Amino acid sequence: MIPGAMPNIDRRQFVGSSAAGLIGLMSDGPADAQRGGQQPAVASDPPQDVTRTLAAYVIRSRPEDLPAAVRREAWRTLLNWAGCAVGGSQHETVGVAVRALGPFSGAAAASLLGRRERMDLLHASLMNGISSHVLDFDDTHLKTVIHPAGPVAPVILALAETRPVSGRDFLHALVLGAEVECRIGNAVYPAHYDRGWHITGTTGVFGAAAAAGRLLGLSEQQMRWAFGLAATQPVGLREMFGTMTKSFHPGRAAQNGLTAALLAKEGFTSSEVGLEGRTGWAHVLSTSCDYAQITRGLGDHYEILLNTYKPFACGVVLHPIIDACLQLRAAHHLTPETIDRIDLAVHPLELTGRRAPQTGLEGKFSVYFAAAVAIAAGAAGVKQFTDDWVRQPAVVALRDRVTATVDPSIAEAQTRAVITLKDGRRLEKFIEHATGSVEQPMSDADLDAKVRDLCDGVLPAARTRRLIDLCRNIEREPSARVIADVARV
Amino acid sequence: MIPGAMPNIDRRQFVGSSAAGLIGLMSDGPADAQRGGQQPAVASDPPQDVTRTLAAYVIRSRPEDLPAAVRREAWRTLLNWAGCAVGGSQHETVGVAVRALGPFSGAAAASLLGRRERMDLLHASLMNGISSHVLDFDDTHLKTVIHPAGPVAPVILALAETRPVSGRDFLHALVLGAEVECRIGNAVYPAHYDRGWHITGTTGVFGAAAAAGRLLGLSEQQMRWAFGLAATQPVGLREMFGTMTKSFHPGRAAQNGLTAALLAKEGFTSSEVGLEGRTGWAHVLSTSCDYAQITRGLGDHYEILLNTYKPFACGVVLHPIIDACLQLRAAHHLTPETIDRIDLAVHPLELTGRRAPQTGLEGKFSVYFAAAVAIAAGAAGVKQFTDDWVRQPAVVALRDRVTATVDPSIAEAQTRAVITLKDGRRLEKFIEHATGSVEQPMSDADLDAKVRDLCDGVLPAARTRRLIDLCRNIEREPSARVIADVARV
Repeated sequence: MIPGAMPNIDRRQFVGSSAAGLIGLMSDGPADAQRGGQQPAVASDPPQDVTRTLAAYVIRSRPEDLPAAVRREAWRTLLNWAGCAVGGSQHETVGVAVRALGPFSGAAAASLLGRRERMDLLHASLMNGISSHVLDFDDTHLKTVIHPAGPVAPVILALAETRPVSGRDFLHALVLGAEVECRIGNAVYPAHYDRGWHITGTTGVFGAAAAAGRLLGLSEQQMRWAFGLAATQPVGLREMFGTMTKSFHPGRAAQNGLTAALLAKEGFTSSEVGLEGRTGWAHVLSTSCDYAQITRGLGDHYEILLNTYKPFACGVVLHPIIDACLQLRAAHHLTPETIDRIDLAVHPLELTGRRAPQTGLEGKFSVYFAAAVAIAAGAAGVKQFTDDWVRQPAVVALRDRVTATVDPSIAEAQTRAVITLKDGRRLEKFIEHATGSVEQPMSDADLDAKVRDLCDGVLPAARTRRLIDLCRNIEREPSARVIADVARV
Repeated sequence: MIPGAMPNIDRRQFVGSSAAGLIGLMSDGPADAQRGGQQPAVASDPPQDVTRTLAAYVIRSRPEDLPAAVRREAWRTLLNWAGCAVGGSQHETVGVAVRALGPFSGAAAASLLGRRERMDLLHASLMNGISSHVLDFDDTHLKTVIHPAGPVAPVILALAETRPVSGRDFLHALVLGAEVECRIGNAVYPAHYDRGWHITGTTGVFGAAAAAGRLLGLSEQQMRWAFGLAATQPVGLREMFGTMTKSFHPGRAAQNGLTAALLAKEGFTSSEVGLEGRTGWAHVLSTSCDYAQITRGLGDHYEILLNTYKPFACGVVLHPIIDACLQLRAAHHLTPETIDRIDLAVHPLELTGRRAPQTGLEGKFSVYFAAAVAIAAGAAGVKQFTDDWVRQPAVVALRDRVTATVDPSIAEAQTRAVITLKDGRRLEKFIEHATGSVEQPMSDADLDAKVRDLCDGVLPAARTRRLIDLCRNIEREPSARVIADVARV
């Protein structure tokens, strides 16, 4: 009745380290025998101690071991996240969630960034996770398309509001959470994502559990249980993209990971091999897993160094186009009226070829609008992807003078833009790496400007400046709760 | 970057109804093309309107349409569930969960059966779901090994405590919840379970969303969103079996399903094809799905009629053995001392062949102890699977005189027991269908006795009698909250 064979999974792809464990992986013993279960033709190395190794690392890592570059990328991650959460806090998606679930919140102990409400730690984690993702403007680990901060930062911020957490420990927990989720993501990407999972929610719950578990002082065994409890609560199908539920994913992952850590701390037992067990997370949720990606070089290299921040409030595939238009605009003082036509050589357009968008949301899927609004507004932030800009006559007119030609020689992060002016001049710009990529990261100044833009209209300007300063210097703060104190209204 | 192909899934197994939809199922369009995605060689009928059909049924079904047999099985399901929840309420697993998460509960609006604490609806649903499963004594839909009541009953009980819910509507919602989860289970069993999912948690979230959505008065569109929100929050890997986290699954499924319905009611949007979409629940969480099992004959036949209740507090594979021993004991007034040996012809032993169990839990996996304790105690309830009984000298001595021989002609629900007495007599009993099976269901009187046994020591006897009477006649109660009023302490 409880058979063990998992059909259609290519076990050869499950790589990691002994032949004895393999039998356990392949067969359910008596149950298999009674069903005539097939024995596998191909052997592979089974994983050993994946969950234990990861738990031990999270428990034993020390803030003072983090290289300066890691700490810098961590505060940039924090700052970008806080800006996105404040900027997204007024979105209808957040309002609906607050109205629906707020009545069930426990004691008002934790802040909702950019809002007046306070909720219990679990609900606050959910809401801040939703806020930070709803504008699609949060950080991205491009190797796995994970948005690392969303499931992790809300949890450690809520914890920092209810117990002493130094800024240094706070930043360290953020690094650990991002490390855990991105390493698990590296191990299963792209198979896991291809299968249909929204990887930010499914790996994020581990990141949240790690960060929360670290701040809660879990033992190694408790951390293993927390990972088991995380494994059994994955969140997020890609089917939800385009609806409010997409933003629910990082928020719920945060809430689930915190729940896992809280339960484990109290002694709620779980599998100690939640990641690699025969019916554990990797086998059940992915068709392949390279376990070494999870355990190799822990503490030697850090995934947060690969984190990136979007300069523009739309999918990354449009970023090189916007980059090219902004750079030509600045160099030549362009306005829509001076331009005859814009010709773009682009990577295959995927979902960004919408010819005549009618709403701000549709504008995010239009290479034509993106080019036009960059020229017209000199920016492509959340304030440009609006119904107003999409319908602005000068933008519409310019949009209709944009052509985009798929060029197989153009990589995803690239574009070649040729702007022909009405006076006959021809301006050309080739973008090799768009701003916001790993190779061409946003500068600290760009990031500050992005956060100022996101917070504008929600926080007073002085508070925004203070928030930026706090994030940048969080390691020197005796208590990380100051972030929440400044970023709520 | 966002490829669509899901490797290693046999799409031929995804059956349901048009060739146009198939293309959408197989290809992610440009993304596939750009990655050189394989086109499938085999075509099949894609699903249409699965989520919509199910949502429409849940919205439109009327209590007065339920046949008498369905209503009877529903109150038996309720009674068995309530008994299990009260009986499990003192278990350490529940205590740990209450200590860990209770501090975050909102207003104390809903009861924890068998306990003094009151919590918000969401936390109460979690806790009552854990309680009802922790003894492994709850109801079972044997076709799918789903435990239908666990994710559904806690939710509707919590709702009944905070708004007017008649007993009739309450029972109707229970039927709908069980129908939804078992139909989804039928569609994906056994592939989904074989893959490693604990099917009670993964389908239970839909059942909980359906039942809650019905009582909350969702529109059809809102119910579709609720199903989308349920789809994106599956709970439960089989890797967690043998730990406290197993019981967490039905509880968390209840909580997640209620969360889904509450969000949808407020307008939180989600996919409207959460079950059948290209990256929806069925494709992502199973290697096959017969969608017709979800939509065919809604309102014509009811899965709750196939629900069963365990007479004995151990896995169902031991039930025929216990049945045989109890029947021979009763017929011949047997005691351990009168017996020379017990010889059992059994179905392959799977995990039940433990020769010398040392704890009550281990006793559940010992065919030898099960036979011995049935003779010694004349029962095999929660009070018999204890360390004390496992170590009792007369039981140990008889246990060592039990042999079990695997007989390929014996089905899983069968056994042949031969008891040889010290006076030389030979007693034989063949069990065709164990008590508690669909063919040989527990009688109402047996069920009452089981519930009395479970509630003993938690509720006063008069309260237990009242609880039994209330469940049996719940349809006549103006408010279903009386169940909670009677079953808490």
